[in-house]
Amino acid sequence: MVDSVFMSELSWPEFEAKIAAGAPVFLPLGATEQHGPHLPLGVDVALPTGVCERVARAVGGLVAPTIPYGYKSMPRSGGGELFPGTVSLDANTFSLVVRDVIRGLGHHGVRRIVLVVGHFENAWPSVEGLDLGLRELRRDGIADMQAMRFEYWDFVRRETLDRLFPDGFPGTELEHASLLETSLMMLLRPELVEIDKAPTDGPANFPTYDRFPVPEGFVPASGVLAVAQGSTAEKGQWLMDDHVALISAAVRKEFGL
Amino acid sequence: MVDSVFMSELSWPEFEAKIAAGAPVFLPLGATEQHGPHLPLGVDVALPTGVCERVARAVGGLVAPTIPYGYKSMPRSGGGELFPGTVSLDANTFSLVVRDVIRGLGHHGVRRIVLVVGHFENAWPSVEGLDLGLRELRRDGIADMQAMRFEYWDFVRRETLDRLFPDGFPGTELEHASLLETSLMMLLRPELVEIDKAPTDGPANFPTYDRFPVPEGFVPASGVLAVAQGSTAEKGQWLMDDHVALISAAVRKEFGL
Amino acid sequence: MVDSVFMSELSWPEFEAKIAAGAPVFLPLGATEQHGPHLPLGVDVALPTGVCERVARAVGGLVAPTIPYGYKSMPRSGGGELFPGTVSLDANTFSLVVRDVIRGLGHHGVRRIVLVVGHFENAWPSVEGLDLGLRELRRDGIADMQAMRFEYWDFVRRETLDRLFPDGFPGTELEHASLLETSLMMLLRPELVEIDKAPTDGPANFPTYDRFPVPEGFVPASGVLAVAQGSTAEKGQWLMDDHVALISAAVRKEFGL
Amino acid sequence: MVDSVFMSELSWPEFEAKIAAGAPVFLPLGATEQHGPHLPLGVDVALPTGVCERVARAVGGLVAPTIPYGYKSMPRSGGGELFPGTVSLDANTFSLVVRDVIRGLGHHGVRRIVLVVGHFENAWPSVEGLDLGLRELRRDGIADMQAMRFEYWDFVRRETLDRLFPDGFPGTELEHASLLETSLMMLLRPELVEIDKAPTDGPANFPTYDRFPVPEGFVPASGVLAVAQGSTAEKGQWLMDDHVALISAAVRKEFGL
Amino acid sequence: MVDSVFMSELSWPEFEAKIAAGAPVFLPLGATEQHGPHLPLGVDVALPTGVCERVARAVGGLVAPTIPYGYKSMPRSGGGELFPGTVSLDANTFSLVVRDVIRGLGHHGVRRIVLVVGHFENAWPSVEGLDLGLRELRRDGIADMQAMRFEYWDFVRRETLDRLFPDGFPGTELEHASLLETSLMMLLRPELVEIDKAPTDGPANFPTYDRFPVPEGFVPASGVLAVAQGSTAEKGQWLMDDHVALISAAVRKEFGL
Amino acid sequence: MVDSVFMSELSWPEFEAKIAAGAPVFLPLGATEQHGPHLPLGVDVALPTGVCERVARAVGGLVAPTIPYGYKSMPRSGGGELFPGTVSLDANTFSLVVRDVIRGLGHHGVRRIVLVVGHFENAWPSVEGLDLGLRELRRDGIADMQAMRFEYWDFVRRETLDRLFPDGFPGTELEHASLLETSLMMLLRPELVEIDKAPTDGPANFPTYDRFPVPEGFVPASGVLAVAQGSTAEKGQWLMDDHVALISAAVRKEFGL
Repeated sequence: MVDSVFMSELSWPEFEAKIAAGAPVFLPLGATEQHGPHLPLGVDVALPTGVCERVARAVGGLVAPTIPYGYKSMPRSGGGELFPGTVSLDANTFSLVVRDVIRGLGHHGVRRIVLVVGHFENAWPSVEGLDLGLRELRRDGIADMQAMRFEYWDFVRRETLDRLFPDGFPGTELEHASLLETSLMMLLRPELVEIDKAPTDGPANFPTYDRFPVPEGFVPASGVLAVAQGSTAEKGQWLMDDHVALISAAVRKEFGL
Repeated sequence: MVDSVFMSELSWPEFEAKIAAGAPVFLPLGATEQHGPHLPLGVDVALPTGVCERVARAVGGLVAPTIPYGYKSMPRSGGGELFPGTVSLDANTFSLVVRDVIRGLGHHGVRRIVLVVGHFENAWPSVEGLDLGLRELRRDGIADMQAMRFEYWDFVRRETLDRLFPDGFPGTELEHASLLETSLMMLLRPELVEIDKAPTDGPANFPTYDRFPVPEGFVPASGVLAVAQGSTAEKGQWLMDDHVALISAAVRKEFGL
Repeated sequence: MVDSVFMSELSWPEFEAKIAAGAPVFLPLGATEQHGPHLPLGVDVALPTGVCERVARAVGGLVAPTIPYGYKSMPRSGGGELFPGTVSLDANTFSLVVRDVIRGLGHHGVRRIVLVVGHFENAWPSVEGLDLGLRELRRDGIADMQAMRFEYWDFVRRETLDRLFPDGFPGTELEHASLLETSLMMLLRPELVEIDKAPTDGPANFPTYDRFPVPEGFVPASGVLAVAQGSTAEKGQWLMDDHVALISAAVRKEFGL
Repeated sequence: MVDSVFMSELSWPEFEAKIAAGAPVFLPLGATEQHGPHLPLGVDVALPTGVCERVARAVGGLVAPTIPYGYKSMPRSGGGELFPGTVSLDANTFSLVVRDVIRGLGHHGVRRIVLVVGHFENAWPSVEGLDLGLRELRRDGIADMQAMRFEYWDFVRRETLDRLFPDGFPGTELEHASLLETSLMMLLRPELVEIDKAPTDGPANFPTYDRFPVPEGFVPASGVLAVAQGSTAEKGQWLMDDHVALISAAVRKEFGL
Repeated sequence: MVDSVFMSELSWPEFEAKIAAGAPVFLPLGATEQHGPHLPLGVDVALPTGVCERVARAVGGLVAPTIPYGYKSMPRSGGGELFPGTVSLDANTFSLVVRDVIRGLGHHGVRRIVLVVGHFENAWPSVEGLDLGLRELRRDGIADMQAMRFEYWDFVRRETLDRLFPDGFPGTELEHASLLETSLMMLLRPELVEIDKAPTDGPANFPTYDRFPVPEGFVPASGVLAVAQGSTAEKGQWLMDDHVALISAAVRKEFGL
Repeated sequence: MVDSVFMSELSWPEFEAKIAAGAPVFLPLGATEQHGPHLPLGVDVALPTGVCERVARAVGGLVAPTIPYGYKSMPRSGGGELFPGTVSLDANTFSLVVRDVIRGLGHHGVRRIVLVVGHFENAWPSVEGLDLGLRELRRDGIADMQAMRFEYWDFVRRETLDRLFPDGFPGTELEHASLLETSLMMLLRPELVEIDKAPTDGPANFPTYDRFPVPEGFVPASGVLAVAQGSTAEKGQWLMDDHVALISAAVRKEFGL
């Protein structure tokens, strides 16, 4: 029997057996989005998938195929849709994908599902997709689905942030393509990180509003919103350790595993 | 610079440079669908992705992230939605995803796009998605997008089919989880093939109509519609060679590469 | 009492009585599409309606009003949307129409429904419409609807095809506006066939892919994909006999009539 | 050449020639709806189609295939959705059908279109469908489409109404399945009228509001809202003469024919 | 405790208590639409809100927040979308808003709902929204919602109309921005009425059809379809008295209050 | 001439004149949502409307009618949909409303629009609505619309927060129905504040994830997420002064007023 936490690597009888045993299913919600000149477009797929893989292993769960296109990048959190290579879905499209996948999983007996956001802008459309999916399942007579939904980066200890940012954490939004994501990529996919290309034009200094069309100079030309310098695989490991430990604990607690 | 045909592995400036140079972009359209007890749920992601990777290398193109959830499995071509692990999208959802991705690529300067279907049921919804995407691009002032759309398995020489099926080719629809897909998986992902679990309850004997709800016994219990026995990686190589050679030739001809 | 299999010709009490008696309802799915210079735009309405009329008479069923606009014509099977007079619906529109009609019939007590496709491109959107309709009915508490769905031309005996095509059958797709449809129209609506205008520029020689925008010369200028010469009402009768006999038998078998 | 005003009876070159000559296209918007025990379910298809046929002949126009399923029947104007045989579309579905047909006609060069409502409840959804269709055409660069939209029964002279209703006209809404429609059906499809079954439980006495769910007794049990007695084919002819004369005059005036 | 019929002025426990006591909820359906040079854009919000406030007080009900954007203005009943300040929703959007609000109210225990149209063009889209909302509630297991839906101006006594229009009532459609609405605004919001700016270019003389694009001169330049001269607050009071008395009576009767 | 910044209080010629003069239009995005036992359901309508009114007066702008129903309340920021009186729209519905209003304003010549969010959960759906609206306007040939979008509460000086929260600001999300909103309501609508009913069961202690269905005790029973005690109209004035000054400055800067 194939030993894998990835649903895509299991045959249907293997999947069936895992679900019958109560395995929670993790659905990573990624994106195809610019992450500066030193990181690839697939960062938001690689990271939540990597986190889910480790958490699933820890708690006996499965990882459904990562949704690789996310909701539109916003200038203040991802640089915006104008950067080449950022290819996104309308909110309605994204939410319908999440709805349909949840509905499909529910019809096959899954009763514990965890949506893991790996792209800031997916937060709200994933809420809507989850709500729509649960609504449909209830109408189909499946009222006992249990679900969690979160952004993986929120599972980090204060001490770790302090270690990573001795001068103070700039906040989640500005961390796009910056120290956290770069360090995690150096851990997971070092061959795709060109750290010498990390720009120095950040951090961005955004106003408290969105502006359309995006004015010239609103976003750093590199697409990096804060600072990537100082990233290391070791720091990525600190983060990953926190993510896996804290998420696993939360999942176990909520689902009684 | 990262050397990869996968868009997800390139940074945005690398992507931008390739597109500026006229690279065609391949979009594999996969599925998460049962493929019998001997193949994993991700066959329809692995195969078109593998084909696109090789063709993109041959013609200087890029491969966009594979859409991992497809249109609903039909009993007569994929076993149907009742097999555990088959998780699908509504047609409208699937077409909107295709539309949005095409629109996004077009807005970033892509002018040659190739939709590569790796799941039978994606055929028509991908036509619609392409039509909607091109319509939106025209309304956005982009009227010169060139596109191709096909099923990869249609690019095979008569001689190859005759070699593979000395007793006659049963037809594309019945080939679900059978000799062609199994052989290709043995070539690309041998560690995921459990050939000893290949069932012997096929081939299916379908009537010329769909039937809802699907009657008991309509589909072979294994989910394999024809016969997987006799699959080998070598046969997979014959197929892959045809797919890559014929698709590359068609793309070069149509796009003048 | 009006004696008719056409639902549109019955009063509501007459319809109610037939449904209470268990009559299956046939829904022909047509199109308004070019069929060459020798056939009218309404071929895909006339033929499935004619088939359904005869089958309904044979099995004691009713024929719901034919949906007269179909899914978009594809170049390789219908010539494409550029031919004057081809007026089509988006896939989502078409599927919603099918969904709504099925839901309405189900709410009035119909429990046996047969979707009869008379236009190649309606195949998949009718699958989706049927799936959506049945889903809504289940949510409305109606879980016992039985349905069939097919293309009428698939109900033909091998012998008949051999008689019609002594040199070999070119395949369903290419038969657009060709021998089969022309012969059936000569049987059903001879006054609308201008056989002397049947072109000789076919058969089409299509590649194994779709191409957008459709290149000059991709489709025969006449819109006829194969060959219409040799069509006769007698051949139409051979076909109709097969269609009615085989469909009636399948409906009786599936619905226990 | 086939001589017909029905688009469905023309070949594509014949259609093309008529449109090139400036022919207006009439689109009848019908329904499948109960019309009492004495009239068939297809009244709202037969009547606007019959009117359009005559007007098209008078002004040199064409009649596109009648949309046979309409917007939901309302209790106060059509008896409501609970009568067996009334099969309707959601408003969004209906409007999308109208939108798509208008868009398709516009893309083929039609520049004069006339929506002819034959079912009271289609009025507003046809307005929306027309607005959406024209909007799409403008975005496709077609800004010179001219359109009219109306209910055919509004084209009647005061004198004719006075002749038909010596005791006063009860109003359009209540006329469902009553004198006007019955007389017109006796003119156009006498074999489908069972005048001896015309009920005597009308006219309905509705309040000034809708009520959901529809209370018992809100609608006459027969589905006839006023009175059908006294209907004759001769009266149908009076009406038809008015409809054809007044609509033709309006179309000529607006389109400069 | 706050004493108000406006839901927006109650806290959630206050709302909960009223609903538990069986209070019907009134939902005014307004618009932002031109009403001539003498009336503000918000007439269709102010009037149904004012009517609902008084009726709710009379029958012990609540008024939900008025929907302030309505369905598109039609030339023959509201002047059309071209008048500055008329800002409208697509029909689908409007119906979805109504659907969602009804669903939300139903989930909180409301079982008596009254849709009060204050803008002619909202009539049909509100029917659809109500139908969709009730459908969703039934699928959510709430089958006992009772609803009414009407235009407030239909609740007026013959005598009152005779008093207001000694020369005959021109009909509801033409009353846009004319005597009825102006008088009611003089009663409710006199500071917003500039009666000296009431134009004299009416009444409009419309044909029996819609025309797109709207021809020059089709609508009076002022946007007033009939005549506003002679409006007084006293006449507004006559109308308001009728509206409140007749609507209250109907609501009491239907809901057994 | 009526002197008002509220669009609903202007006649169409008055609106037209203001827009021709370049007035920016503010669109407040509200909600109908529980705000604890001491505040009314309409807080999220009253506050952004009040802010917009003052800013519009300061910069010569107009305030469009406030959208009174918002996106679904989330447990961690608004208590969730289960509190009586919280009536919300699906994300798609909400975004379509925003899209349609922006499109309508753009067609009437508005070129400066400001979306002002008054309900946390409206943030993302308003982004999508704005994006869809601008996209449609571009397709309609209007490419020069300038837009801003923000949450009004983000316009506050550090000093003010320090004055308001000597023990540290708990963060925007937890501020639901707490000190900020209560103080602002005491300023704007003191008659609707029942400060003695302010609960003491907060502040909420939320985990870093959403949980469905919402577990018992996840949200404080009162619906107040932090602490309302200590609220005063004077503090509301501090906040309002900041909001108006900072927003006005930002609008002037961005729009060059």
